[in-house]
Amino acid sequence: MNQSTLEQPGYRAAVVDLLGVLAYGELTAFIKMAVDSDLAPSLSLKSSMAQLANTEFVQYTELVDHMRSIGIDPDAAMLPFVAPFAAYHERTRPKGWLEGLVKAFVGDGIAKDFYREVSAFVDEDTRAVMASALDDAGEADFVVQVVRQALATDPTAAGRLALWGRRLMGEALSQAQAVAVDRDALSALLVGGGVDLGEVGRMFTRLTDNHQKRMGRLGLTA
Amino acid sequence: MNQSTLEQPGYRAAVVDLLGVLAYGELTAFIKMAVDSDLAPSLSLKSSMAQLANTEFVQYTELVDHMRSIGIDPDAAMLPFVAPFAAYHERTRPKGWLEGLVKAFVGDGIAKDFYREVSAFVDEDTRAVMASALDDAGEADFVVQVVRQALATDPTAAGRLALWGRRLMGEALSQAQAVAVDRDALSALLVGGGVDLGEVGRMFTRLTDNHQKRMGRLGLTA
Repeated sequence: MNQSTLEQPGYRAAVVDLLGVLAYGELTAFIKMAVDSDLAPSLSLKSSMAQLANTEFVQYTELVDHMRSIGIDPDAAMLPFVAPFAAYHERTRPKGWLEGLVKAFVGDGIAKDFYREVSAFVDEDTRAVMASALDDAGEADFVVQVVRQALATDPTAAGRLALWGRRLMGEALSQAQAVAVDRDALSALLVGGGVDLGEVGRMFTRLTDNHQKRMGRLGLTA
Repeated sequence: MNQSTLEQPGYRAAVVDLLGVLAYGELTAFIKMAVDSDLAPSLSLKSSMAQLANTEFVQYTELVDHMRSIGIDPDAAMLPFVAPFAAYHERTRPKGWLEGLVKAFVGDGIAKDFYREVSAFVDEDTRAVMASALDDAGEADFVVQVVRQALATDPTAAGRLALWGRRLMGEALSQAQAVAVDRDALSALLVGGGVDLGEVGRMFTRLTDNHQKRMGRLGLTA
């Protein structure tokens, strides 16, 4: 697929989907983080969470600008993903700022894993803009630190947050599967790139492994 | 007061309050606009509202950076205003994105009026950073356009939004009065700057007049 260009309609449709799902993911992540920051227990945490939200917005803007620069209508590209993201967020409403932070951390991790899986199958420009949009400039470290501090103060939170992490991963995979069924071009990008059913299985194993590692970084069992 | 410098404790306390109230106003405006954008009826409107929210955040960051550069702790400066803003927002929860936009427009307008009233009494640096933090780069025009379009589609909204605007102004004045009573240095800046009680009355008249003009721009009676 290295010779893929945006002139090929099937490949173009896949890139439109890829950028659309990433952009809408950033936009909703921005909104959810801003909403959760309102519940932060201190001004300094509220400010830091607002900063995280802002980073998501800047990355959203980068993706949208890139789409426009190559003639893609961002709203049309994002539209197919409004319903699955709404379903995901509806089923995973955080109770408080700490669950919100864990959710952002897990969601960002899944987005990065997804990027890593597809980056081998996309052209150089698309790969670069995706990498930039998913570079969190160490902000995930802030989440790790805050969650670990919170667990040190309230060890009973560990069980609740571990359960929360499992629920987030389950709902994310469930929506990802719905998207895969619905978006032919996106699925074809992976399958056409030489991914057989066995490889899809291994991909899910990798996603689950990475999720467990991330939960471990937070001090939680997955 | 032109010779006022931050070395004078009373003047410094007033500037700490000024920058604190503006910064916390921007931070909460950011959060509220992001929350309201989640209810936007289209992707393009959601994106535009997220952009408005982001502008508030950038302005918040400018104020916080400026405070740090002159040795003011931003969190300490904002803390006295957490309660009045919480009370204001608690009493003025928008029902939907349109009320949210009108609220942002009215709130921004009041903040700008407040800036204009005090700008004669502050030093040049403070005046510059306040002006920059309150420059919306024409984004208020977007709100005017969207509200007018909404009124054209649903003329019955005009009565409801006019009432909403009056409530916003009433609650804002009520919280402003509570802040004035509570924050001596801030009040002294105005009174010490040669403002007598008659002038305070005229100031309220100007605030109300400007509010009516802004509501008129939206196509609403105040």
